[in-house]
Amino acid sequence: MFEDIKAIYRNDPAVRNIEFLLYPGLHAIFVHRYLSHLLYRARIPFIPRLISQIMRFLTGIEIHPGAKIDKGLFIDHGMGTVIGETVKIGKNCVMFHNVTLGGTGKEKGKRHPSIGNNVFIGTGAILLGAMKIGDNVKIGADTFIMNKNVPKNCTVTGTPGRIVRLNNKKVNIKLK
Amino acid sequence: MFEDIKAIYRNDPAVRNIEFLLYPGLHAIFVHRYLSHLLYRARIPFIPRLISQIMRFLTGIEIHPGAKIDKGLFIDHGMGTVIGETVKIGKNCVMFHNVTLGGTGKEKGKRHPSIGNNVFIGTGAILLGAMKIGDNVKIGADTFIMNKNVPKNCTVTGTPGRIVRLNNKKVNIKLK
Amino acid sequence: MFEDIKAIYRNDPAVRNIEFLLYPGLHAIFVHRYLSHLLYRARIPFIPRLISQIMRFLTGIEIHPGAKIDKGLFIDHGMGTVIGETVKIGKNCVMFHNVTLGGTGKEKGKRHPSIGNNVFIGTGAILLGAMKIGDNVKIGADTFIMNKNVPKNCTVTGTPGRIVRLNNKKVNIKLK
Repeated sequence: MFEDIKAIYRNDPAVRNIEFLLYPGLHAIFVHRYLSHLLYRARIPFIPRLISQIMRFLTGIEIHPGAKIDKGLFIDHGMGTVIGETVKIGKNCVMFHNVTLGGTGKEKGKRHPSIGNNVFIGTGAILLGAMKIGDNVKIGADTFIMNKNVPKNCTVTGTPGRIVRLNNKKVNIKLK
Repeated sequence: MFEDIKAIYRNDPAVRNIEFLLYPGLHAIFVHRYLSHLLYRARIPFIPRLISQIMRFLTGIEIHPGAKIDKGLFIDHGMGTVIGETVKIGKNCVMFHNVTLGGTGKEKGKRHPSIGNNVFIGTGAILLGAMKIGDNVKIGADTFIMNKNVPKNCTVTGTPGRIVRLNNKKVNIKLK
Repeated sequence: MFEDIKAIYRNDPAVRNIEFLLYPGLHAIFVHRYLSHLLYRARIPFIPRLISQIMRFLTGIEIHPGAKIDKGLFIDHGMGTVIGETVKIGKNCVMFHNVTLGGTGKEKGKRHPSIGNNVFIGTGAILLGAMKIGDNVKIGADTFIMNKNVPKNCTVTGTPGRIVRLNNKKVNIKLK
């Protein structure tokens, strides 16, 4: 929890004094970590989804109770962000409003993205399918990726997303 | 109404037991069908728009009271979805959050899209103008279409949208 | 304030009688102009951000208290729209839902866009960085611009945005 608060001060130049209290992303992550995800893992029916939907109403952020989120996540603004049931998110990631970590509707079981550590996902990015996103990846605003893995240490932009930077060198590589 | 509930179970792999009760899309469609659209057709002023805006506050989905929606619509997640006054939607359609069925601001009268039957519209797709979308069309996430008709049985993706699949064959056709 | 109401009737073909009362954009702009921005300029801590976040909850529109907004702004639908701390907006602008006037996270001080007069910004457009957008510019739906200035009297579309119309002539110019 403390890691989530530190993540705000590390990432947002606009935050001052105790304004971390006002971040809807923090509220959504807090309730997910300490309530809805725990109830989901205890296989309680219905209640975790109910809590998730109440938090969506309060924050504009929809985190399915099944999503596995490691420490230090910062969701800025957050309105319209959707995180699916089988999503995994590593340590110290940052994401913005209108980010979708969703499914294609064609898969069963694990059907949503797995995100590595220190990953940045810009406003409006849409990632659909059971892909893997490597550590230290930056996904630019408005990027669209469907069912493609992304190697670590790169930057992906565009619709559909292409690798435009890899290990600090400019490149232009189609995702496979 | 029953058709709208069946649509959730047909389309969402995440839904279990009686969780259909929690879908903001269902709430928004229900109130539209049985309240705001009926008052709009009875030419009651102001109240239908008021109800529509209250539902936008509660669900994040804005359906103008004038929109004509046939049975079996499923709106998943729904935050940021906007459906304009002169929109028509056919039977058994599916759409996601941040979908816009809007106008260009240059037209009068019929100025929003008409959607066929069994149409799928992915996350963040923006359709502007009095276009017609044929039956069995899939519009990919993040697609943008302005004032172009889409024939039936095809898949459209991209910004601007192009036909990438037609009658189950890969194609690459500009929309006219 | 009166200018903001006139802007609704000038721009939205769907508005009738006293429906201007129902526009979340008007509510968000009104509270920003006459409360949160004034408290921000008086250097009151915390309270302006608190008001801004309450208005985000009520309207889906997040306007940082620091943003400088000239008269006659119309925000239509507005869900997911984010306006950053150092944004400036000129007279008689129009913007839609899911518009982001944000930062890149790499700048300090002035780090958000400055928008001219009579600027139109379509649904889902994302503008990041301390760029300048000239007077009478139209930015199409789903356009993405990062750290590029836009000259006056032109239309920009695409991801990344390109000038497609300048002084009423068709062009195709990369932004610099």
